[in-house]
Amino acid sequence: MLIVCLMFSCCQAASPVLNSPTLNLMPAPSQLTLQEGKFRLTNTFKIRVNGPGHIRFYAGTTRLLRRLDAKTGLFFAQNQITATDQDVNANCGITVKRAGKVVLNEDETYSLQVTPTSITLTAETDIGALRGYETLLQLVDSDETGYFLPAVQIKDQPRFPWRGLLIDVARHFMPVEVIKRNLDGLAAVKMNVLHLHLSDNQGFRIESKTFPQLHQLGSNGNYFTQEQIKEIIKYADDRGIRVVPEFDMPGHATAWFVGHPELASAPGPYTIERRWGILDPVMDPTKESTYTFLDAFLKEMTDLFPDPYFHIGGDENNGKQWKSNAQIQAFMKKKNIANAHDLQSYFNERILKILTKYDKRMMGWDEILQPGITKSIAIQSWRGKKYLYDAVQKGYPAILSNGYYIDLMHDTESHYLNDPLPADKQQQLSPEAEKLVMGGEAAMWSEFATPENIDSRIWPRTAAIAERLWSPGAVKDVADMYRRLDYVSLQLEYVGLTHETNYPMMLRRLTNGRDITALKTLVDVIEPVKEYTRHRQGTTYYTYSPYTLVADAARPDAKVAREFRNLVKSYKAKPTEQAATEITYWLNLWKNNHMLLQKTIQQAPALREIESLSADLATISQIGLEAVAYINTKKGISAVADGKQRGNTISPAAPAPNWYNTSLAALQAAKKPRGKTELMVVSGIEDLVKLAASK
Amino acid sequence: MLIVCLMFSCCQAASPVLNSPTLNLMPAPSQLTLQEGKFRLTNTFKIRVNGPGHIRFYAGTTRLLRRLDAKTGLFFAQNQITATDQDVNANCGITVKRAGKVVLNEDETYSLQVTPTSITLTAETDIGALRGYETLLQLVDSDETGYFLPAVQIKDQPRFPWRGLLIDVARHFMPVEVIKRNLDGLAAVKMNVLHLHLSDNQGFRIESKTFPQLHQLGSNGNYFTQEQIKEIIKYADDRGIRVVPEFDMPGHATAWFVGHPELASAPGPYTIERRWGILDPVMDPTKESTYTFLDAFLKEMTDLFPDPYFHIGGDENNGKQWKSNAQIQAFMKKKNIANAHDLQSYFNERILKILTKYDKRMMGWDEILQPGITKSIAIQSWRGKKYLYDAVQKGYPAILSNGYYIDLMHDTESHYLNDPLPADKQQQLSPEAEKLVMGGEAAMWSEFATPENIDSRIWPRTAAIAERLWSPGAVKDVADMYRRLDYVSLQLEYVGLTHETNYPMMLRRLTNGRDITALKTLVDVIEPVKEYTRHRQGTTYYTYSPYTLVADAARPDAKVAREFRNLVKSYKAKPTEQAATEITYWLNLWKNNHMLLQKTIQQAPALREIESLSADLATISQIGLEAVAYINTKKGISAVADGKQRGNTISPAAPAPNWYNTSLAALQAAKKPRGKTELMVVSGIEDLVKLAASK
Repeated sequence: MLIVCLMFSCCQAASPVLNSPTLNLMPAPSQLTLQEGKFRLTNTFKIRVNGPGHIRFYAGTTRLLRRLDAKTGLFFAQNQITATDQDVNANCGITVKRAGKVVLNEDETYSLQVTPTSITLTAETDIGALRGYETLLQLVDSDETGYFLPAVQIKDQPRFPWRGLLIDVARHFMPVEVIKRNLDGLAAVKMNVLHLHLSDNQGFRIESKTFPQLHQLGSNGNYFTQEQIKEIIKYADDRGIRVVPEFDMPGHATAWFVGHPELASAPGPYTIERRWGILDPVMDPTKESTYTFLDAFLKEMTDLFPDPYFHIGGDENNGKQWKSNAQIQAFMKKKNIANAHDLQSYFNERILKILTKYDKRMMGWDEILQPGITKSIAIQSWRGKKYLYDAVQKGYPAILSNGYYIDLMHDTESHYLNDPLPADKQQQLSPEAEKLVMGGEAAMWSEFATPENIDSRIWPRTAAIAERLWSPGAVKDVADMYRRLDYVSLQLEYVGLTHETNYPMMLRRLTNGRDITALKTLVDVIEPVKEYTRHRQGTTYYTYSPYTLVADAARPDAKVAREFRNLVKSYKAKPTEQAATEITYWLNLWKNNHMLLQKTIQQAPALREIESLSADLATISQIGLEAVAYINTKKGISAVADGKQRGNTISPAAPAPNWYNTSLAALQAAKKPRGKTELMVVSGIEDLVKLAASK
Repeated sequence: MLIVCLMFSCCQAASPVLNSPTLNLMPAPSQLTLQEGKFRLTNTFKIRVNGPGHIRFYAGTTRLLRRLDAKTGLFFAQNQITATDQDVNANCGITVKRAGKVVLNEDETYSLQVTPTSITLTAETDIGALRGYETLLQLVDSDETGYFLPAVQIKDQPRFPWRGLLIDVARHFMPVEVIKRNLDGLAAVKMNVLHLHLSDNQGFRIESKTFPQLHQLGSNGNYFTQEQIKEIIKYADDRGIRVVPEFDMPGHATAWFVGHPELASAPGPYTIERRWGILDPVMDPTKESTYTFLDAFLKEMTDLFPDPYFHIGGDENNGKQWKSNAQIQAFMKKKNIANAHDLQSYFNERILKILTKYDKRMMGWDEILQPGITKSIAIQSWRGKKYLYDAVQKGYPAILSNGYYIDLMHDTESHYLNDPLPADKQQQLSPEAEKLVMGGEAAMWSEFATPENIDSRIWPRTAAIAERLWSPGAVKDVADMYRRLDYVSLQLEYVGLTHETNYPMMLRRLTNGRDITALKTLVDVIEPVKEYTRHRQGTTYYTYSPYTLVADAARPDAKVAREFRNLVKSYKAKPTEQAATEITYWLNLWKNNHMLLQKTIQQAPALREIESLSADLATISQIGLEAVAYINTKKGISAVADGKQRGNTISPAAPAPNWYNTSLAALQAAKKPRGKTELMVVSGIEDLVKLAASK
């Protein structure tokens, strides 16, 4: 029973017990009142609609119906929802005033009332209704009698109007299906912007009919056709999500130059970049032909993308090509342009004119904020929150991405607590400046992500970012967030996201079809190394390298490891026998795992790189068992751990003189990354050792 | 150790030990000689190409390189393969004489020689080379030293030129990504035809620019644009796969009539059909306007699809609308057309003329074979092998689909042994007639399949059909087929197929996020009911019904159940203590599973429908344990089973007088389908009971 219980608490979604007014909802609604009773879902469930004749409304309501039926298997009688669904006896009434526009600041409020006999959802716009449908779906629970929704009264609206996800389709191309399933994921957590990073040194990912060599020579055939872009925009629009395109310029532009070397500041020919990093190629901002080209290109692209915002990147230009080009230097001298920064400002102003002509608001990374540039541009802060505040204080609307770089493999908590406008913020902003903080965007750069594993880098962590941007700032209980994250992560599977499903598949491939049990036990407690350290651990990665190894299968914020560390924390606070038993269960599992995994590794050469990591896990688990034994002895708890089995003379009663130091040394050694991954239970075991050694 | 061993043998791919000249290859090559030594794969692997300048060749070879690197994680230095990859020192040489054409009867032969120092692949066409690449990938194995390919000499070519899969995108629409990943699956097992069933009563699934109301009113928005069709054809062509379109007519055509009721034989209006079955609506073959319409429509579609074959369906017209239409009856009288059959022949002849005009060969289901129709048409036999032989004896080329209807949920073995031209065939065919047997097609009708579970209905069983159609007829060892099927099933995952990955996802949804261990133990030994019996078990299914229940998650040819039945067979043949122990392990697992599963079911209402099935599994497992105890006692083997725990007075030494009859009755009761699924271990336990009762 113990094991069953442990496994459940550690590997399953939290039991959907109604233990807090956040229920299983993510993002949490701004106002929720739990009431008496339950609305029973049965096959008599029926929807009545009263709303605008917009296809989005009926298609979205039909999807609600089908998803509800898929989840419960109740065989609802209604099929496609249309304007004729007006049965006054229907037990679910949906009222929408008008068709929304998929633009910034559209009304997304909704209210949802569930009573034991009816569900009533009202919204100003169908987009608000879509947000409410996700809440409705997350409310579905079950008990001995059947499926139900708890009686609640919810009034909800977003805190910030810009809640986005950037997907970098340039570094590794992400085909339409990856984009579509992630749009469904965004919709499920009420996000409303998909930012597509469409060009970079490593690829130009969209068909240009004006300059077809851009995609023909710059993509190795991996690009979106304009038809596909329209399909993506339509799919996003159906879900109330804006699509903001980004064409990074003047730097990050090698892929443009393969077909159009005349745009570059150094002579070609150019080939598609296969390396990662900040590279020299940059557009020549001094030639009129550059702007003639960009004018025609931007005309084409601004026609294709309906959103008023248009992102020009503008980051990480190292200026080297400008310095070594005599003509550019002469231009700068002549125009009195002091440095590369100012030259980029000049470039930005020119692009701004073009975009303004085509009725777009220019957006860029925080580097584009140069003195004097018009207030109509918008800033995306990536280098620090300081740049966000700088921008809004100077009167520029801005969004936060610093702290939301999900490719860096940080834990969910750090992203979750990264509030664009924290209640206790040091930086005092004027009310006007505060208003200019439009929201934020999770940024999924794809150097190390492929269609196979990108979902596991985006989800479920982005759901916590979605909550930060939607819910009131006061919703910040980390434990409750993690509880709900488990639940929402499962819901995200049902729209086709592969963050869970592809994990065992990648492990199976690594074992060449052998049993993955032992491998999974290890990979469940390791994470890919953080930040960009992966580049500095002895492997040179190229765009075409295999991203199918342990570091690519391992997932950020490893749940089992996190819960073990929490278990140790609660044991430190209150060293109960129950907690000791649970800790011992895990430590024994890990101690014995290496022997099993070694057999797999013998026949699976790709796993050799983590063999010593697995051995270290066994070693430190043994140390942890000894620590628990000492602690228990001190506390008068009978020893659960088999401390005596280690090859030394330590008795469980008292540590040997060197035990503390040798143990800490072993733990220190275990922290060393191997296979570009790191063990995430070391600090938990360190805590145990320190506790054992403390008086 | 026992358990580890059992689990491995039952849930994992067979260890890739080189125990037969089929190795892990599926389909097995026509000639393979195993030689001494191994070619070691390292990061020095390098490809040298000598072939036609066709993009298919270079793209296909690049995919080979990347898939090999993904599988081994070796970080090969080569990136895109181009004509410049000519290094004479490269250890993998590929020579292709010419670019193949993706048409029937194109040369697909290849030879592959692996020595300890080199790999050499030669083929007449790049399509043959693609077939060889799949063999090369399947040869990859690993040992303590690393990855390798065994030294082999292979000469290979297909037995039949037409090796296809029909995907019904009409009943449930299957988006582009479903088609693409299945094209990769087809390529992986050397199949070369994708047959798209594009229209039926329940949907018209392709954009028509000539008659846009066809898709606009006939699809609920679920159709392929012509751009998407081109994308699919290109994707297929890149893999040497033909795309054969089917527009079912004159019956199975309700969806056409929603936008064009004038085509029908009874007055409209029509709505998209939501029910399943054979329905009345049928085109009016007596009006000239029907042919004017179809001429324009077929002109458009024959332009879009490059393959010379064009499928017009022609099946299951019940003739009712014709009988009740006076005008049609008058037409028949006037033209001396005796019955509905002959009227359909008249229709077919008219369509044939149109298709011939557009340079297509007409193909249809076996109903279209009417006396006197031109020999240029091709027949797809679905009603029985007899129709295949009828066709070819009359001089019509034909393919077999009868026996390959994978939607019927039969086991792999039955499909595998269904040879279009078995060596011992009753029906003697002339050599000319034999030559007209072009091959066969697996048929994936999608009444009960959705994008979520269709892969698990197609794979891995279709790999065995692929072998039947590619490999020599003498390759028919069922046990060896199943061994290799386990291996190839894993390989099929790596191209993105979801037959394994979506299984636990669907179980997680059914438990609403609770532990799936007990549910999986049950569903691992059940299968969806066979044939179309699902329609006759108390539920009326519509197109929009939820296909997310246990029967939809359960998979045909349940591996654990099959291996248990085999275990019992080998125990009957030789009742060893080892076999008894293994059988007892499983029976105990199932006996105890119900208690665990009941807890899940309490909170998961969608599982109620299989609660009694789970109880029956426990009951019959207890019976099985008693049987093993009796058998062991008789054989002088000490009792392993805990037969005494059952609530009766039977001692392990001898069955009570009624034990045999009551046990058989319980087993009989356990055979009853519940939740549209059936227990697949009943016959195995019956065998044990009979063995226990035998003298």
